[in-house]
Amino acid sequence: MTNEEGMVKKMPEDSRNGLADYDSSYARYCDHTILKAYVKQKVVKAFCEEAIRYRLASVCVNPVHVAFVRQQLEGTEVKTCAVIGFPLGANTPAVKAMEAADAIRNGAQELDMVINIGALRDGDDDLVHADIRGVVEAAEGKALVKVIIETCYLTDEEKTRACELCLRAGADFVKTSTGFGPGGATVADIQLMRRVVGDRMKIKASTGINNRETAKMMIGAGADRLGLSRCVQIIEGDDNLASAATSYSAPLSGNS
Amino acid sequence: MTNEEGMVKKMPEDSRNGLADYDSSYARYCDHTILKAYVKQKVVKAFCEEAIRYRLASVCVNPVHVAFVRQQLEGTEVKTCAVIGFPLGANTPAVKAMEAADAIRNGAQELDMVINIGALRDGDDDLVHADIRGVVEAAEGKALVKVIIETCYLTDEEKTRACELCLRAGADFVKTSTGFGPGGATVADIQLMRRVVGDRMKIKASTGINNRETAKMMIGAGADRLGLSRCVQIIEGDDNLASAATSYSAPLSGNS
Repeated sequence: MTNEEGMVKKMPEDSRNGLADYDSSYARYCDHTILKAYVKQKVVKAFCEEAIRYRLASVCVNPVHVAFVRQQLEGTEVKTCAVIGFPLGANTPAVKAMEAADAIRNGAQELDMVINIGALRDGDDDLVHADIRGVVEAAEGKALVKVIIETCYLTDEEKTRACELCLRAGADFVKTSTGFGPGGATVADIQLMRRVVGDRMKIKASTGINNRETAKMMIGAGADRLGLSRCVQIIEGDDNLASAATSYSAPLSGNS
Repeated sequence: MTNEEGMVKKMPEDSRNGLADYDSSYARYCDHTILKAYVKQKVVKAFCEEAIRYRLASVCVNPVHVAFVRQQLEGTEVKTCAVIGFPLGANTPAVKAMEAADAIRNGAQELDMVINIGALRDGDDDLVHADIRGVVEAAEGKALVKVIIETCYLTDEEKTRACELCLRAGADFVKTSTGFGPGGATVADIQLMRRVVGDRMKIKASTGINNRETAKMMIGAGADRLGLSRCVQIIEGDDNLASAATSYSAPLSGNS
């Protein structure tokens, strides 16, 4: 069912009552993402198993889960991705750089860091740059760096400036959202980011990508990677499919 | 208007059209709190000015604002409070301890740290204890430690166990909430916490304390400190009063 060129490959109708619309070409875009504060290890394990089964790009977790995830993914092509300074980005540069080094030591191969949003809005570009640069230096040669600019809080001028600062600091990706703000990726923002960074940086769209239609729109607008928890639903083309993501809601208010 | 014994002291009707119901006895309970990702420095400054004017207990900020806040509060009784591992608590123990030391170096006199919520739910009490203990040791003799257990994600058994672990680790306070989960302080939770910790630890109620009635209920249930942004409204007894807190909403969706 997989396809090395990453092209669309549809399965014939399978056993799921003709609902299935399997498309493995989405897999390489998907960072399988589990970032809630309350996550138990068995849920992390289920995400890892799905990421291996569907050959996803990475499993993206909070720092406390990095060592466990790396161990689960050992011997596969799926990368271990850690968030840094997450989700507020309001940690000092020294702490972000140290957290990056710590995550790499624990097995992280990709880092999704959050910028100092207040400093960007205050026009303190030197501080924003130094903050990103500290993580890029800690990761140099050891991990990819994606930089979350949290678009939902920024004007277009601020988004443009943030992208330029990511470029200048030598980051690999610019990424839209944490999932903890009031908004996520939009087609207009992906297009803006692509205009600013050209082909010098990759782009990750995240938050609100809950079905294949949205995933397709983000990729069409220029996204190289997608951050989401519903990877399995998007590949299988079945929004109602049970997966690790569908049992991933807050405790006391439903499943855990 | 202040009152050293912290007793209720009401002002006679003042100039605000008889609406005022000033009560300075709330001031010593109040951690004036500004933790959103998008906060600009001028808003932090306004919170500091209000904290000084009303003689509040502390100004509670993200690590990037600690040095600035300490400078603003210099020469006053108002403490500088920093959050650690905030708001997910899913940073490694090494990073939390390092962030605590970094915040103290920058001027923090109180630390509000978040526990490893997933580990608590997984029953990994040794990890939860070591995580808290690392911050307590970094702070020893230099800063108070308040431990946020994020009650909204926990059963009563888990809340009880969390309080016991805070006690065992030598923390000064146990605190209910980050404000980033789906729920905040309740009277039942404050009573539960008080039953577990007795008079061996203090209790901080936070999140959802938006008016004087709620503040009074939390204090009545046993809270020693309140975490909130609407301190001025609570002291002045006027929910509609303009203050730093009322101009503290997300950018692009209103004031900034």
